[in-house]
Amino acid sequence: MDVIKTVSGGVCAPKGFKAGGICCGIKAGSAQRFSGKRDLALIYSEKRCAAAAVFTTNRVQAASVLVSREHLSGGTLRAIIANSGNANACTGGAGLAAARRMAELAADEFAISPREVAVASTGVIGVALPITAIENSAGALADSIRGDEAGHVAALEAIMTTDTRRKEVSLEIEIGGVPVRIGGMAKGSGMIHPNMATMLCFLTTDAAISREMLEPALKSAVRRSFNRLTVDGDTSTNDTVIIMANGEAGNPPIGQAGENQKLFAAALEEACVRLARALARDGEGASKLVTVIVEGASCEQAAEVMAKAVASSSLVKAACFGADANWGRVLCALGYSGAGFDPGKTGLRFKSRSGEITVYRDGVPLPFSEEEAKRILSEEEIEILADVGGGPGSATVWGCDLTYDYVKINGDYRS
Amino acid sequence: MDVIKTVSGGVCAPKGFKAGGICCGIKAGSAQRFSGKRDLALIYSEKRCAAAAVFTTNRVQAASVLVSREHLSGGTLRAIIANSGNANACTGGAGLAAARRMAELAADEFAISPREVAVASTGVIGVALPITAIENSAGALADSIRGDEAGHVAALEAIMTTDTRRKEVSLEIEIGGVPVRIGGMAKGSGMIHPNMATMLCFLTTDAAISREMLEPALKSAVRRSFNRLTVDGDTSTNDTVIIMANGEAGNPPIGQAGENQKLFAAALEEACVRLARALARDGEGASKLVTVIVEGASCEQAAEVMAKAVASSSLVKAACFGADANWGRVLCALGYSGAGFDPGKTGLRFKSRSGEITVYRDGVPLPFSEEEAKRILSEEEIEILADVGGGPGSATVWGCDLTYDYVKINGDYRS
Repeated sequence: MDVIKTVSGGVCAPKGFKAGGICCGIKAGSAQRFSGKRDLALIYSEKRCAAAAVFTTNRVQAASVLVSREHLSGGTLRAIIANSGNANACTGGAGLAAARRMAELAADEFAISPREVAVASTGVIGVALPITAIENSAGALADSIRGDEAGHVAALEAIMTTDTRRKEVSLEIEIGGVPVRIGGMAKGSGMIHPNMATMLCFLTTDAAISREMLEPALKSAVRRSFNRLTVDGDTSTNDTVIIMANGEAGNPPIGQAGENQKLFAAALEEACVRLARALARDGEGASKLVTVIVEGASCEQAAEVMAKAVASSSLVKAACFGADANWGRVLCALGYSGAGFDPGKTGLRFKSRSGEITVYRDGVPLPFSEEEAKRILSEEEIEILADVGGGPGSATVWGCDLTYDYVKINGDYRS
Repeated sequence: MDVIKTVSGGVCAPKGFKAGGICCGIKAGSAQRFSGKRDLALIYSEKRCAAAAVFTTNRVQAASVLVSREHLSGGTLRAIIANSGNANACTGGAGLAAARRMAELAADEFAISPREVAVASTGVIGVALPITAIENSAGALADSIRGDEAGHVAALEAIMTTDTRRKEVSLEIEIGGVPVRIGGMAKGSGMIHPNMATMLCFLTTDAAISREMLEPALKSAVRRSFNRLTVDGDTSTNDTVIIMANGEAGNPPIGQAGENQKLFAAALEEACVRLARALARDGEGASKLVTVIVEGASCEQAAEVMAKAVASSSLVKAACFGADANWGRVLCALGYSGAGFDPGKTGLRFKSRSGEITVYRDGVPLPFSEEEAKRILSEEEIEILADVGGGPGSATVWGCDLTYDYVKINGDYRS
């Protein structure tokens, strides 16, 4: 969609947002400030924002999720405070108190209500959050925020854990002739699966939009992006996606369904899809982005179920790592997905920038050049395309390959 | 249960069964006979057997599964013919004809009906089965069968693919004062998951039992054994469990529910559990057998769902490989399993022959010695125990760790 322009600045690209990130000593495992990697982030809006969020469906929920869920019920936000290095999950009553304290600390710096502050944590589960380190650094954190790209980058770095690259997005659209921007950052590389991940995603927009329009737009965008992302099949206790809309763009307010609302929703989905692809590409140990596209299914949901089964299959993932066109594993995964389809009317293709091959059509294996297949599957971004019949349902799911490094990273994460 | 005695002989332990296995050239990829690994197996009963089977739930089903399903509908069997090296799956009409031909070839050797022959195949998907190789070797296969353990071993070796060890069982019980035996063999190491696997399992018994009693006993045993087994989350197109009962033991026939039927069902479940454990232990690349036991759930099904989520989690499996007591991942998997439970009333333990540690109780992490945990988790057989409340439901699931070798084996399986 060329009505959506790519710009720079991340969460600071929309007007009126500031961000920052510092080291408070959580990641280092000590309380020494500024001595190591950034681990405390803040995103702040000068104006009150309409806000919406989507949280993990895991029955075990981090303290930060419980507190943010409560605060989001008010429908407005001014700030998000987040730490990395500790998930503050399975930490009992003390963890809950610590999450509340984080919101208070941020609120005190700007003389706002703690209920207008969302809290997020990511990192190791079951270890008490060193809240004193955050208390000692709240002032420095507030001082660190700035309204440019550097502020965005500092905040983003402060929420990264095993991530090896930054996941960020900033887009611009025009609503009623007025430029409107959406910015975002995400973290996560392991424990990523529908629904969502050890994934944090913070989105900002200067669009003037009511909460009633913002919430369904976010839910729909998440459903077609982060919920179609799989790295290892594990859904974490901390998954959180939050959007803040401050209205600073001055566009005609989006208060009901219509063209403007559709355009905003499309741009938000595009922002989320870009972040989801980036998360898959940076899956723990991943060497490849694997995009699975199922078409011709009975409905979108059936297509999604099938695409997820393929993208989640350890055998398919290992074959992608080995650049092996083992299409039998793809067909097998479609078969156990639970969705109905006719294998006799199914076709399979592999594709990348090096070319495309059809390996299976209407239930019959086709001869193909192993050499060509290897070349296609050796690229860093590959596509597996399944056409499962003449139905109207299609879906795209993003995943990655299964590598030695995945095993290495996760065989000894805590130490 | 000490009423169940362990004996030797595998599928030849019960009276009246013979077995054999030869090399017909499928595995070698050529048609040269006896030149390499065994790849064609036969199990034969002198008398007509009551028979029952459970097949893969995958929508894509191997030709052999389609043919065996059809033949089993008659309720009796005399023989099973099976090949390894080629799954005869996704091979269209030619594959179906080849599977039927396999049954005919075996039937012709013994002048029995092809409908009393079950067919099974395991190996690579989507490659035409070289039926000529089987045709050329049918006579030699029939000549190779014998009624002792060597016959059992030859047949078992002929169905193995990436298996690194034999999975076999033979048990004896007494029914009405008469010794009755159950024997079995299984193959499978990758693509193993509920429901079942690239798994073949052939069971024999000399019990006199009606098909009406045999079928529910097999289904129940499979549900509590092979369906609680997970190696990599993939359910294959070929999974097959078949049991043949020839009545040669001369016990009072089991024709209705009662003590004798219960004892037989318990012994059959024990046989299947032993094979399932052996399959998990030999999971592709596995270095450890991981047994997950969930207790205190609302019902058996909820316990099973939770135990499967833990045993299937790539993060838990990688932690087992690294001997890392990362209990947060266990709790997280329980949380996303979909079953209801209260994390605040949950306890977690790790156990092996080196000891036992409790790491979490009533929602609170407990301090533990990392050194002791490492020692416990470094054993070849480890248990993860979750007590999720005061409910009556419990279930045991068998799995394995996720290792570098899994990635290696599956990154380039076809070459």
